[in-house]
Amino acid sequence: MSFKADVITLFPELFPGPLGASVIGRGLEQNLWSLNTTHLRHFASGKHKNVDDTPSGGGPGMVLRADVLAKAIDAVSPANDPRPRLLMSPRGQPFTQKMARDLSKGPGALIVCGRFEGVDQRIIEARNLMEISIGDYVLAGGEVAAMTLLESVVRLIPGILGDEKSRDEESFENDLLEYPQYTRPADFEGRSVPPVLTSGDHGKIKKWRQEQSESLTRSRRPDLWTK
Amino acid sequence: MSFKADVITLFPELFPGPLGASVIGRGLEQNLWSLNTTHLRHFASGKHKNVDDTPSGGGPGMVLRADVLAKAIDAVSPANDPRPRLLMSPRGQPFTQKMARDLSKGPGALIVCGRFEGVDQRIIEARNLMEISIGDYVLAGGEVAAMTLLESVVRLIPGILGDEKSRDEESFENDLLEYPQYTRPADFEGRSVPPVLTSGDHGKIKKWRQEQSESLTRSRRPDLWTK
Repeated sequence: MSFKADVITLFPELFPGPLGASVIGRGLEQNLWSLNTTHLRHFASGKHKNVDDTPSGGGPGMVLRADVLAKAIDAVSPANDPRPRLLMSPRGQPFTQKMARDLSKGPGALIVCGRFEGVDQRIIEARNLMEISIGDYVLAGGEVAAMTLLESVVRLIPGILGDEKSRDEESFENDLLEYPQYTRPADFEGRSVPPVLTSGDHGKIKKWRQEQSESLTRSRRPDLWTK
Repeated sequence: MSFKADVITLFPELFPGPLGASVIGRGLEQNLWSLNTTHLRHFASGKHKNVDDTPSGGGPGMVLRADVLAKAIDAVSPANDPRPRLLMSPRGQPFTQKMARDLSKGPGALIVCGRFEGVDQRIIEARNLMEISIGDYVLAGGEVAAMTLLESVVRLIPGILGDEKSRDEESFENDLLEYPQYTRPADFEGRSVPPVLTSGDHGKIKKWRQEQSESLTRSRRPDLWTK
């Protein structure tokens, strides 16, 4: 069974978008994963098909209604759905490479894209939504965040990347940033490739790369280094 | 003068994509910001129009060439370009709301989207590229990362959001996550809106929201709380 993604959004026309390109898009065509979008607006009721309303207690912006979201979620993710239900939100738990890896081994995910000022807290509790944040900044909505999450998860599904080995030395595996890379030409504007890399001594190359990774992580990301 | 974004990518057809939707897209139509994409492939030379080559010293994957990137960068961002030059990369400095705010007040940005195993380190040094990471996970390329960065920056440009006030109480302003939101209906599956929010007592509401923000930040993001 392949990874099954369901996305609930007010902008279904944005998908697959970037998820239809490159290796991720090829994987979609080859059914290594699937993507289904659900338009939240279709679950609105009343004359005006409203999906949102003003915040209880006042304040700027609009809040997505719990009852409308509940209908959309229940339509694509019944109570016995084994997939985690995620809500993209800056208030959420920070998304990490480890979460990407765990999700990539599972049956898929339901992803709710927030918009406006947020979603009614009661739907988070009633449908057990896990709030996930892709970083410490605020977006206009959850759509690009959902694409980010899905791209990082899907590329880890076996068969997506041509060379499985390329995943083992990349950033965040072993809590280290990746070492600097070089390629041809040997001389670029008077700057040359570090001689060790063209020495042919694989032991030395490995040691140099490890040192570079450690020194970069220590200087740029002391928070990762202390782990 | 409005915010001017230039993106160098192997997938120009993905833009504006999500950046063409909602308030961000409306701002683009109204020239509150501009977006220009440059196809890296157009700057490749040789019979095969290669933009990448194998890593010096061996290893999986391919590395984007410094000389090809240099031509693309120089074509859209001459030496006297006042805009920062950013490279989306998991090795980079973590992108934050403060960086989004600072960028939104500036003349724009040149954004280089990486692909494959990374880019030749010499172009980072020779063109003073600032490596920026949107989070601690690995993507298939920098395109979705560039969209994420631009969406968070552009929404802060005056005139983009209808209600400027909605930015002041959101997550990461004052290093706090946003308080929970509620809206109609008053009863949802037996769950009611917290009585304080319908009390009409604005002092009490403000205090309750502040407490909720603090308690959520403390429990979910101790790293932000200690700041």
